[in-house]
Amino acid sequence: CPGFKAPTAQTVSTQETTAMSTPPTSDEACKMSQSVLATLMCAQAPGRSVYLSNRGNSLRQHRGILQEGFAQYVVNKYHDTNNPDGIINMGTSENKLCYDLLYKRLTHPDMLHIDPSLLQYSDSRGHAFLREVVAEFLSHYCCSPNPLKPDNVVVMNGCTSLFSCIAAVICDPKDAILIPTPFYGAITEDLHLYSDVKLFHVPLDCEADGKDSRAFHLTVGKLEEGLKRAKEEGLTVRALILMNPHNPLAEIYTPEEMFAFLEFCKRNELHVIVDEVYMLTVFDKSVSFHSVLSVDSLPDPQRTHVMWGLSKDFALSGIRVGTLYTENKDLLEALAQLGSFHSVPGSTQHQVAQLLQDREWIDEQFLPENRRRLKAAHSYLAQELQSMGISYLDRPACLYVWADLRKYLRESSFEEELALWRSFLRHKVVLSCGQAFFCSTPGWFRFVFADQQHHLQLGQFKLKQKVPAPIHTPKPVRRRKSQ
Amino acid sequence: CPGFKAPTAQTVSTQETTAMSTPPTSDEACKMSQSVLATLMCAQAPGRSVYLSNRGNSLRQHRGILQEGFAQYVVNKYHDTNNPDGIINMGTSENKLCYDLLYKRLTHPDMLHIDPSLLQYSDSRGHAFLREVVAEFLSHYCCSPNPLKPDNVVVMNGCTSLFSCIAAVICDPKDAILIPTPFYGAITEDLHLYSDVKLFHVPLDCEADGKDSRAFHLTVGKLEEGLKRAKEEGLTVRALILMNPHNPLAEIYTPEEMFAFLEFCKRNELHVIVDEVYMLTVFDKSVSFHSVLSVDSLPDPQRTHVMWGLSKDFALSGIRVGTLYTENKDLLEALAQLGSFHSVPGSTQHQVAQLLQDREWIDEQFLPENRRRLKAAHSYLAQELQSMGISYLDRPACLYVWADLRKYLRESSFEEELALWRSFLRHKVVLSCGQAFFCSTPGWFRFVFADQQHHLQLGQFKLKQKVPAPIHTPKPVRRRKSQ
Repeated sequence: CPGFKAPTAQTVSTQETTAMSTPPTSDEACKMSQSVLATLMCAQAPGRSVYLSNRGNSLRQHRGILQEGFAQYVVNKYHDTNNPDGIINMGTSENKLCYDLLYKRLTHPDMLHIDPSLLQYSDSRGHAFLREVVAEFLSHYCCSPNPLKPDNVVVMNGCTSLFSCIAAVICDPKDAILIPTPFYGAITEDLHLYSDVKLFHVPLDCEADGKDSRAFHLTVGKLEEGLKRAKEEGLTVRALILMNPHNPLAEIYTPEEMFAFLEFCKRNELHVIVDEVYMLTVFDKSVSFHSVLSVDSLPDPQRTHVMWGLSKDFALSGIRVGTLYTENKDLLEALAQLGSFHSVPGSTQHQVAQLLQDREWIDEQFLPENRRRLKAAHSYLAQELQSMGISYLDRPACLYVWADLRKYLRESSFEEELALWRSFLRHKVVLSCGQAFFCSTPGWFRFVFADQQHHLQLGQFKLKQKVPAPIHTPKPVRRRKSQ
Repeated sequence: CPGFKAPTAQTVSTQETTAMSTPPTSDEACKMSQSVLATLMCAQAPGRSVYLSNRGNSLRQHRGILQEGFAQYVVNKYHDTNNPDGIINMGTSENKLCYDLLYKRLTHPDMLHIDPSLLQYSDSRGHAFLREVVAEFLSHYCCSPNPLKPDNVVVMNGCTSLFSCIAAVICDPKDAILIPTPFYGAITEDLHLYSDVKLFHVPLDCEADGKDSRAFHLTVGKLEEGLKRAKEEGLTVRALILMNPHNPLAEIYTPEEMFAFLEFCKRNELHVIVDEVYMLTVFDKSVSFHSVLSVDSLPDPQRTHVMWGLSKDFALSGIRVGTLYTENKDLLEALAQLGSFHSVPGSTQHQVAQLLQDREWIDEQFLPENRRRLKAAHSYLAQELQSMGISYLDRPACLYVWADLRKYLRESSFEEELALWRSFLRHKVVLSCGQAFFCSTPGWFRFVFADQQHHLQLGQFKLKQKVPAPIHTPKPVRRRKSQ
């Protein structure tokens, strides 16, 4: 083995890192909302590094609540036999109910296909064969009035990457995108870390405020008001993000609601990024989800961009595949330039294509069984919450419920909420608390139920051990069977 | 299927894109070197889009030569039977000689392993099992004096992503990184597109200029001079990029040379990013490659970062896996924050781990046979070039040779070089011309030889058809058997 010795005799000292304990630099995103400050409180931020740029230091010093919970979980995962004292994860939105079905399908011989082109550099938007399959898949499951076009599809390694790239090409640094709160808080980092784009929050109230209203009700009026406020703050707002079904509310918007939001965007020349990553995760057959791609005539097709991926609907978050559908050729061309940073292995592209075109497996096996298991897991968690007198939004979609734990807070503050979250974590249950989703009222938590029943049972047991007697009588949350 | 009809009766017109034909916005990177201007000349840049931000427009309007050649190739690939009139690609650095070996190994049953954890979210630096295997692999093949540590490894979807992320965390926007020219030109985009970091060029002369000198000879003096010039231009220089073996020169630096470069970096408090992605692609057994990771005492270990991946050494460019090894914990923490944008599927991480830990296959089968085939392909191309009276750098490494086509230029200009490149492309051979690598003298081309002999043969045949009689007598290039 050809060694490589220092050719000079002089002693070369190993330079020591003497990190200085200066406070973290202010995070631009913090100005957006007071509640985001809480994300920095949850761990001692490290000191400034002499080796990193300002940007690098800001990245390193960033600490989010979701991230902290997940980091602790990763190194101390609960396991029935190997680590029975580990952490039960009810915080990360993953579907852990279908491993057997996936195992059977993904070990089928058709998955182990190796072709020279799969081992070589390819189109940065994704292989043509996969974009074709995605277009067919979305045409069918989104009930598109006309066949969707493969050339309008971009495949990247997850929706995280898509959010980052879309933000980079429709926004300049410091521009803003509107989003109603609460929302899946990691989008903040998706847009900010690389692309330096801000989210401007449109807070939704946890109480219904009229006869046609419901908890966390999004209306065009609230969007108009949010946009006005953002402009008053001097921000350039370029887009609105909508999630349907919603994370963390699990809400499904009606076609009429969604159309009104799209028209709001058209009126204001805003792009709209519609995240439909839970579109097949609706477990009550009587409830219909309506994709934006089923609209026969979109208000502003050039500014309407629809995201979907395999993480949630196919329980494959580790496979890292997200897709975008848009008619805007300029956007597609710009995204193609960033594609090489977010590419998916050729062999994975093949496997995903095999999966998505196997309608028999999807329709006869995976979807019905997945729905059945999700429904059962949801019922179990719902019962447990009811037995604890905890109110929640009752929706037949997604992998979680949004629940009201305000009665356990000694006072209505995000510090109290964080303390409760921490004490759950100390008792080895990780949840997601409302401030991680920028909820405007403290005390709301997201409970992921898509796990084996004995894990949920153990999680609930640990929670029950922890939670004190209610500090005040819970306010009733209006439950509403979805549309 | 639940349709989604526009609820209002009003006619909603589809907004038409009326792209205005304004000239492209000036690209910051262009200021770095005149030669980069040529990359924008090679295709009519599209007009400005009203739908994109300034950044998005700049991304979309970006056109590189390498990109243009590859784009034409992707839609018109030569195929023996299906597309015999297609393009032969001697421009993209891919090893197409080992498909049979890879096919056999990658379809082995151990590759089709599905485990719940592979389907779930994981550590953003890569799964622990893979980082462990990478550390062992690098310890062995880089001849590290001590075992390398898994916690110092980051795995991302390719070295493109690693370049982008490292630039983002050690540089602020508009900061610069030194690089000797010619160099693999795509690094310009890797650093610029997302992270807005500039490359500052240190030009190497194609003529030897003294008794110990050689063509394109990199010296510490040239680095010092380049750094001085960059500072005079007001740039903040944060790092130096070194490629070893080099792309496109295929040069292997001696330990003494490399150590001198590392000490230059230490003196000037520069990070050094050492790209060793061709480390196993050395096809003459008498020649030794020395990895920086074999140094027993690095001048500045906290600022020394070593990249490697599977694209070249394992002929798996489509698999998208790059690795970084660094002792700098601050850098590792900052990179971890960006990891979720550049993740690799769990199943691919498993496959890569299986491959890298199969020493028997690597040492007994893949490496010897790969070397034998590369050597034969190199000899074939070398002979062909010689028969055309074309000089080239004779190095026993990498997948290409760097050749002197100056005699075919009517005048010494990059316009002429581009015209020659274009006429090759019209004759269905894509090569890489020197200006795509920021070579300071026009007329140099990179020829990739790692392809089936009948492809090379056809490529050479097409080239011979095209090239005119030499316009002037070729200047001799000193050939030098590597160290």
